[in-house]
Amino acid sequence: MVDRAKKKIDNIEHKGFIPNVSYDSVIFGFNGKQLKILILEYYNTGLFALPGGFVKRNESLDAAAERGVRERTGLDQIYLEQFYTFGSLTRSDPQAMERILEGNGMDRQAHQWMLDRFLSVSYYALINYDEVTPKPDELSDNINWYPIDELPPLMMDHNQIVNKALEVLRDNFEKKLIGMNLLPSKFTMKQLQMVYETILGKKLRRTSFQRRILGMDILERQEKLYQGKAHKAPYLYSFKS
Amino acid sequence: MVDRAKKKIDNIEHKGFIPNVSYDSVIFGFNGKQLKILILEYYNTGLFALPGGFVKRNESLDAAAERGVRERTGLDQIYLEQFYTFGSLTRSDPQAMERILEGNGMDRQAHQWMLDRFLSVSYYALINYDEVTPKPDELSDNINWYPIDELPPLMMDHNQIVNKALEVLRDNFEKKLIGMNLLPSKFTMKQLQMVYETILGKKLRRTSFQRRILGMDILERQEKLYQGKAHKAPYLYSFKS
Repeated sequence: MVDRAKKKIDNIEHKGFIPNVSYDSVIFGFNGKQLKILILEYYNTGLFALPGGFVKRNESLDAAAERGVRERTGLDQIYLEQFYTFGSLTRSDPQAMERILEGNGMDRQAHQWMLDRFLSVSYYALINYDEVTPKPDELSDNINWYPIDELPPLMMDHNQIVNKALEVLRDNFEKKLIGMNLLPSKFTMKQLQMVYETILGKKLRRTSFQRRILGMDILERQEKLYQGKAHKAPYLYSFKS
Repeated sequence: MVDRAKKKIDNIEHKGFIPNVSYDSVIFGFNGKQLKILILEYYNTGLFALPGGFVKRNESLDAAAERGVRERTGLDQIYLEQFYTFGSLTRSDPQAMERILEGNGMDRQAHQWMLDRFLSVSYYALINYDEVTPKPDELSDNINWYPIDELPPLMMDHNQIVNKALEVLRDNFEKKLIGMNLLPSKFTMKQLQMVYETILGKKLRRTSFQRRILGMDILERQEKLYQGKAHKAPYLYSFKS
């Protein structure tokens, strides 16, 4: 425990970070059926949270968010998009931070700055669920995918951050074609429709969906996906580059 | 000068503010022809900037932005929408801050914290140009409307902030009907079309614009606007509430 705590104090010292600012990230993945989010569980606390972190004095905000996601989840090179900065007076929760410090055997005095008020710059990402294996960092004993409609209660205002991320995602979805990041490189029309339905939160008619998508001229038809009865095999598609 | 400086030191002390975080606001107005932005000029510096400020420890981020705009421009009760947080390593400019402190006879030592790195949470607003008379605060000798295509070089990354605001504004414009905030309560179809053209940055065909807008069922037709030849008088419209 001492070595663990020692390592953490070396890693997290106030001097190196901008005080009162953190970031949080909402990392969406699609498993072919459900839209899910990566949630961390902190050691010995029962506290669930979005992966987040602090900004070093000598790194840009975007670089901090990328580094933090890499360190906390093991995911590298994922595309993050900033969407909102949360700054209410009531959002910080010093008691939750104290439980995390205690649960990890960290010295309260040395981390006093972490109990202060924080603004959170929030980012979202969309990744292909199948290509990644998230790994928890040393502060957390778990990192798991949770369906967006089955999230545990998250610490501080993190549930609110998730809701805002979903709202922005829905707003941007058709405009920016960001859904493509959730799919494997080849996918069926049905899978694509499920991504749209999950994010937009409503059922779409198969025929009109298909007509609209094909009319956008963004897909390239590939070979058929043979599994089971061959005469029913659907075509695979990929996004035009 | 001493009294001036004294007052400012009382007003701006590090202790009361969150360090390393500021906000900036891009306040759009439409004068019937051009889209303009409010720009401050700092005393004795030749430096132009967006109206901005710092966040008090005991106020929310949104409240800080509203208070700051009120204090710096004299505009009250304007609707601000947060759009992005700028956090590059190169954005802060201690030399410009030093010139502002010197130009205002403020003690450099007492305001050392203002020379540090800052993240800027940026907001935009759309207001009815005719209803407001901006007033500069005590740090600035001018506050003026500048057409968006005739801006002076702004300090730090403020030109970049304006460009991002315009980009977000264009993205949100049709979706959120925010253009209505730029117009008087009654307006002609031509004025409405000019707002759309200015923000979207392109000419629109009168007939198709008119058809599309009327088809949205958002306008209420009012009396005619009589000026000059009566047989040419256009109708006035207002937005349905």
